[in-house]
Amino acid sequence: MTNSSNAGAPTRRVLGIDPGLTITGWGIVDGDGSAASAGEYGVIRTKTKSSRAERLGQIAEGVRALIREHEPAELAVEQQFVAVNVRSAMVIGEARAAAMVAAADCGIPVFEFAPTAVKEAVTGWGGAPKEQVQQMVMVQLGLTELPEPLDISDALAIALTRLGDLRLELAMARS
Amino acid sequence: MTNSSNAGAPTRRVLGIDPGLTITGWGIVDGDGSAASAGEYGVIRTKTKSSRAERLGQIAEGVRALIREHEPAELAVEQQFVAVNVRSAMVIGEARAAAMVAAADCGIPVFEFAPTAVKEAVTGWGGAPKEQVQQMVMVQLGLTELPEPLDISDALAIALTRLGDLRLELAMARS
Repeated sequence: MTNSSNAGAPTRRVLGIDPGLTITGWGIVDGDGSAASAGEYGVIRTKTKSSRAERLGQIAEGVRALIREHEPAELAVEQQFVAVNVRSAMVIGEARAAAMVAAADCGIPVFEFAPTAVKEAVTGWGGAPKEQVQQMVMVQLGLTELPEPLDISDALAIALTRLGDLRLELAMARS
Repeated sequence: MTNSSNAGAPTRRVLGIDPGLTITGWGIVDGDGSAASAGEYGVIRTKTKSSRAERLGQIAEGVRALIREHEPAELAVEQQFVAVNVRSAMVIGEARAAAMVAAADCGIPVFEFAPTAVKEAVTGWGGAPKEQVQQMVMVQLGLTELPEPLDISDALAIALTRLGDLRLELAMARS
């Protein structure tokens, strides 16, 4: 038996993560194929006095705690990119790996998107500045104020990108 | 009261890790300030059909299992390095981060050494080839055969490097 009422519309909850060794942005977004809404969002801050390994552990534990609390079906994160500043890209890569370990520990899949794909999906232009992404995230999620800092708006944008990819699948399940 | 018998000599158990997305070498080494001996060693292999995140999760869980079983006091790993091949260095960096998360999860500290420092400590020459490191690891640990593959000899070399750094501390505690 299929429940065709709107209340029974299938939704997908995605946890978007914008990883960083000091600040990791996160945002919960629910989508049902036609609309998306933001749940909670925030940042995981690591202790600057901790060792590199301890900070990576704090990121992993923070993400595991978010997954336990909010029960997302998936985690979305930007693909590893090779930046002009290789050293800072490698630090981001470590934080990203910690978030991926957390998802694996909790048994949820990880979906990765190129930074340009995220900007394209949210603003229509792959070269959009972060501030424009932030504006569009506010509009698309119907928020009453700008999600700040940029780590949070980026995390919400990544989750929105994943839900955009899922739109057809969710819409078909809904109809 | 100090027990001055040799049986009471303080030893330190170090888990050396040579991280890789496909194969992560590991080795347990015990040192008391004058001699070092190898415990078990081996490799953690990830499933090639798994996603990147799942493989990082397999590395983290593998390292956590080793820590639970062998109860090392510390984990030793090579420092993140910026290689000519940036992309492959970033993949190694992710595997390294997964091992560091595992150590943090288990509450043991991580010590990092530059690749040249490991070669220098084990062979006396920072530019030594991996095969020479492998030979010297066999000699120093009194093994009856070459530790293979190179992922294992590298992991044992990293643990030996950490124990070399600890030599004075352990010798003083022993005397």
